[in-house]
Amino acid sequence: MTISSQDAGEIAAQMHLIGRHARSAQRGIALASPEAKTCALLAAATALYDHNAEIIHANAADVETARAAGMTASYIDRLALDTKRINAIGQGLEDIAALPDPVGKVMEAWTRPNGMRIERVRVPIGVIGIIFESRPNVTADAGALCLKAGNAAILRGGSDSFETSRIIHRCLVEGLSTAGLPEAAVQLVPTRDRAAVGLMLEGLQGAIDVIVPRGGKSLVARVQAEARVPVFAHLEGICHTYVDRDADLDMAVRIVLNAKLRRTSVCGATETLLVDRGAAPAVLPTLVGALLSAGCQVRGDEATLKTDARVQPAKEGDWSSEYLEAIIAVKVVDGVDGAVGHIARYGSQHTDSIVTGSADTAERFLDQVDSAIVMHNASTQFADGGEFGFGAEIGIATGRLHARGPVGVEQLTTFKYKIRGTGQVRP
Amino acid sequence: MTISSQDAGEIAAQMHLIGRHARSAQRGIALASPEAKTCALLAAATALYDHNAEIIHANAADVETARAAGMTASYIDRLALDTKRINAIGQGLEDIAALPDPVGKVMEAWTRPNGMRIERVRVPIGVIGIIFESRPNVTADAGALCLKAGNAAILRGGSDSFETSRIIHRCLVEGLSTAGLPEAAVQLVPTRDRAAVGLMLEGLQGAIDVIVPRGGKSLVARVQAEARVPVFAHLEGICHTYVDRDADLDMAVRIVLNAKLRRTSVCGATETLLVDRGAAPAVLPTLVGALLSAGCQVRGDEATLKTDARVQPAKEGDWSSEYLEAIIAVKVVDGVDGAVGHIARYGSQHTDSIVTGSADTAERFLDQVDSAIVMHNASTQFADGGEFGFGAEIGIATGRLHARGPVGVEQLTTFKYKIRGTGQVRP
Repeated sequence: MTISSQDAGEIAAQMHLIGRHARSAQRGIALASPEAKTCALLAAATALYDHNAEIIHANAADVETARAAGMTASYIDRLALDTKRINAIGQGLEDIAALPDPVGKVMEAWTRPNGMRIERVRVPIGVIGIIFESRPNVTADAGALCLKAGNAAILRGGSDSFETSRIIHRCLVEGLSTAGLPEAAVQLVPTRDRAAVGLMLEGLQGAIDVIVPRGGKSLVARVQAEARVPVFAHLEGICHTYVDRDADLDMAVRIVLNAKLRRTSVCGATETLLVDRGAAPAVLPTLVGALLSAGCQVRGDEATLKTDARVQPAKEGDWSSEYLEAIIAVKVVDGVDGAVGHIARYGSQHTDSIVTGSADTAERFLDQVDSAIVMHNASTQFADGGEFGFGAEIGIATGRLHARGPVGVEQLTTFKYKIRGTGQVRP
Repeated sequence: MTISSQDAGEIAAQMHLIGRHARSAQRGIALASPEAKTCALLAAATALYDHNAEIIHANAADVETARAAGMTASYIDRLALDTKRINAIGQGLEDIAALPDPVGKVMEAWTRPNGMRIERVRVPIGVIGIIFESRPNVTADAGALCLKAGNAAILRGGSDSFETSRIIHRCLVEGLSTAGLPEAAVQLVPTRDRAAVGLMLEGLQGAIDVIVPRGGKSLVARVQAEARVPVFAHLEGICHTYVDRDADLDMAVRIVLNAKLRRTSVCGATETLLVDRGAAPAVLPTLVGALLSAGCQVRGDEATLKTDARVQPAKEGDWSSEYLEAIIAVKVVDGVDGAVGHIARYGSQHTDSIVTGSADTAERFLDQVDSAIVMHNASTQFADGGEFGFGAEIGIATGRLHARGPVGVEQLTTFKYKIRGTGQVRP
């Protein structure tokens, strides 16, 4: 049921009830068999295919409203669904169903001198709150990843995708119901009121264990500033590619073009190119020329400005800009130590790469750059759970604790210790 | 230098400076060789032995002040040091020095179909804030554990152990200096002002990554309620031992007596005994009799009251009491499901054990009880990092994320992904 107008007390009561439902469903979902969870996900995919027409109908209403509100074309594009996109969402559910079940996996095991056997075993985290913006597919992706890892999910979608999300959510609930699992394992917040977000960030009276924001920088910043529960997120991806004096130039060009331009809108896209002063005369013109020819705007420091008249001067703010566009900042640095220093100062601890033929220099970079993902001779665009082999991801985290880098089903679990003895008492 | 009276602005400025020093020292300590860290810890132990007389002198002043303030005998006992205790602190440093270095350990490694090699490698967390009460040995233990894991530490000791902590801290700094490591890697807050704690809980302007409180329930509760950074802690250990119908009675008696009475003041001590209704007539009188004979007060439910006239009636509050004394609450429950339900309602997700000869029943308990540590046929008093083989621990965490259970040097690290390629770009 859509709720259009409520007072704060009503919303709080409703949200806290959602929290309690999630907590009680969590127990059932945590102990559900792998087969039951797989069944729920496959049945949800079937429901999505079956309700294709209904989803497109609801989505058309959302798109119409967004258009009337004057949203941009790219915004509308993120929101709009057609049969192909709906099938892709269903395929995503099937892919998640096919992943190995992480719950119960023994991470480590050892036997103590007194004969006690200790196992460290993956268990679900509990209840995950997901706050997202316009993309309605997050309803299915995020709900399914939480479910696979044995967690209950509370989804709060953007008000612009409200109608679409409701129907996709109903498909997930159909799946849960088919598998005999508690329907409250995946709940969608049934109000557009923004007060619901604030309540989730407070943790719904202890009902939410982790919040995952999915959306733009302002959403993530608000969540990080206000959440009273742990957050898995990255605020921005100011990723660097450093071309060392011992780099192979062909490889460097190939990696830099891919790292910047394959898709400019992803968080793993390189935003700053750092070039070793020792190699700059030989490689900088080629690298800059290749970027310019590929349609990329180049903003350079003094040394870079001299290589090509089309290079624009970089300002101080460029070194900490996440463009997410075909723009790159270029700077000449004093070797690998200069690169490490620049990244420590301006980076966002997301993903950084070195191109070099020297194993020693590469190890120095991999050790000293303090980011979630550090790479040697590879494109920063590989910063992605799928590319890591995690199957699917709910996002990338730059926080230092628990989940760092791509957040897939394993990162949505925690662990407990199981100890099996034969009557041991402690001396 | 001891600062006795300051205004809030001065304290804030001083604490934020401590935070910045910690951040800059952190880099040096994170990249320090295992040998340098070992050297620092051994040199600190030597300094402790060398400064024995000075430590005893300073400690006498602390004890005198505490006595004059009317502190209890047990409080004074936690505070007081003699040569034997100082040597034990030094031995603790040597033990931590001898542990394997966790930094750089490859936790997992795999190769992607495109040939990229991905490693998940342990790295230090960063800066750890430790807030503790009267025990001055925490200065050495906590500082050394943080250092071993490559972290910088900011220690805020109780004002009653202020003078003692200062000299122990000076020994740690001597060790760092001997090893050529940054002295600010372990800092002691040089003010007794309680405002310093509030500033640490706010994270010192982003300088603190994790807070570890070491002390009583009121300290931990304050830290958990007010901290704006992650906390590794447990508020209380309401641990259960459940004696199943298939338990061996001799084993059950041995485990229950040890779990409750070996040391009643530790967080892993059992506070509630649950007995299977199917076994109660046969085992309850023996269990209750053994506890009473050992000097334990028994507070029982109706069924337990009938077994012995010395049993006192349990009130509702007893099921959620952490006595930390020779008192136990005893309840008869309906089999393993009854035990699981009781623990879910009243437990603190710390440590719970089942005594049974049935492997099936044991697995049911181990799977369904949602605590950091779950045990079969062993005493809950094993809930300890040393007993797990972790060497030493900074505490036990009942939070669900990152560190759960005993927090040793490995739990004081995080990880990053190192990816080694040969020029891979993303299609």
